[in-house]
Amino acid sequence: MGLVSQRLEELGIVLPAAPQAVAAYVPAVISGKWCWTSGQLPFRGAQLVAQGIVGQGVTIEEAQEAAKQAALNAISVATSYVGDVDRLRRVIKVEGYVQSSKDFHDQPQVINGASWILQEIFQEQGRHARSAVGTNALPLNACVEIACIFEIGE
Amino acid sequence: MGLVSQRLEELGIVLPAAPQAVAAYVPAVISGKWCWTSGQLPFRGAQLVAQGIVGQGVTIEEAQEAAKQAALNAISVATSYVGDVDRLRRVIKVEGYVQSSKDFHDQPQVINGASWILQEIFQEQGRHARSAVGTNALPLNACVEIACIFEIGE
Amino acid sequence: MGLVSQRLEELGIVLPAAPQAVAAYVPAVISGKWCWTSGQLPFRGAQLVAQGIVGQGVTIEEAQEAAKQAALNAISVATSYVGDVDRLRRVIKVEGYVQSSKDFHDQPQVINGASWILQEIFQEQGRHARSAVGTNALPLNACVEIACIFEIGE
Repeated sequence: MGLVSQRLEELGIVLPAAPQAVAAYVPAVISGKWCWTSGQLPFRGAQLVAQGIVGQGVTIEEAQEAAKQAALNAISVATSYVGDVDRLRRVIKVEGYVQSSKDFHDQPQVINGASWILQEIFQEQGRHARSAVGTNALPLNACVEIACIFEIGE
Repeated sequence: MGLVSQRLEELGIVLPAAPQAVAAYVPAVISGKWCWTSGQLPFRGAQLVAQGIVGQGVTIEEAQEAAKQAALNAISVATSYVGDVDRLRRVIKVEGYVQSSKDFHDQPQVINGASWILQEIFQEQGRHARSAVGTNALPLNACVEIACIFEIGE
Repeated sequence: MGLVSQRLEELGIVLPAAPQAVAAYVPAVISGKWCWTSGQLPFRGAQLVAQGIVGQGVTIEEAQEAAKQAALNAISVATSYVGDVDRLRRVIKVEGYVQSSKDFHDQPQVINGASWILQEIFQEQGRHARSAVGTNALPLNACVEIACIFEIGE
């Protein structure tokens, strides 16, 4: 058992089933020693964890929970492509989009929901670079979208 | 004749002339075995295929056509840097921005206009990871902007 | 003394102290021969160079100055990770987000503030691919956010 799967077990996390792409693309691609995931929405099964605008209905806490779910989905789709979660060696980059009211400026707080769980799982190897930006509109009225780049190993 | 140029011929597609950068940067850069394109607007010659806000004047179909044009421009600028379209071996990542009204949430449908043509041309090697996000404002009032990462070969 | 540090000296530029991450991530990550920076805000010391909406209070010139500062911060955080500014060999990609009013469409002009200084410093090796997009809301009400990918050498 590798480090990541051990850590998932310790944390009591069962990865969600990998969400299907919602359109004409694939959920993740490997090239060289990297895996790029598609932008993940906060699906938990067939439902989005939170829909709506952060700062105007959706709270930071709800959006953090959504960001966490989207990050777990990113791990899940990457795993479905590399075949084994323990081949995900490091988290390199997280791009986080937050559907925001125009006077909401705590996008970093929201995307922390993703960053925290990535670091809990990957620990030192989960320390990633990150962009957190607001947007007026996301697919399916999701409150967050998260794309990741993972470094992969043998 | 390589696979990509053969496929372009079969599809009857003549790549557009590579758009010039509209500011102080270059349209594409190669590093390692990847080519990053700059964000491409839907220029067809000197005109944008569609300007305005999707969900508020611009239809999904018009925006899909714009996304297709921007994707062709991405292939074109990448080709102008690698020298031969057949050196573009795979499409790795597409980042698609859609100028959206705040209640428009079908960005994935719009960016399909880019994804479909990439897969028609590159076929199995055109299956890419993707982010589709909305935004309140894009350069020159374009309705879409598309940036790509291609894997390149010898 | 390497080329980049020599050029900084010629330009009379002292890199700013590397800003700390404002949340649960790190300012830059190295993987393979690339360094991905986190999205940088236009901090100069503890202050943001410009806050507000471009096209609605913040001028293009003010936003360009902010973009320049964010780019310097990107160089600074990358340097703090690679250890020596001269190991930054090339600028590959710049992602520029501009907090915009919905009728402001000169994001490329704004992000030129980043592109110009990168090219002044890195010269031929500073010619980068770039995306410039608008957004309705950025962290801390900053008017711009800039993320970079650098190619690194020995």
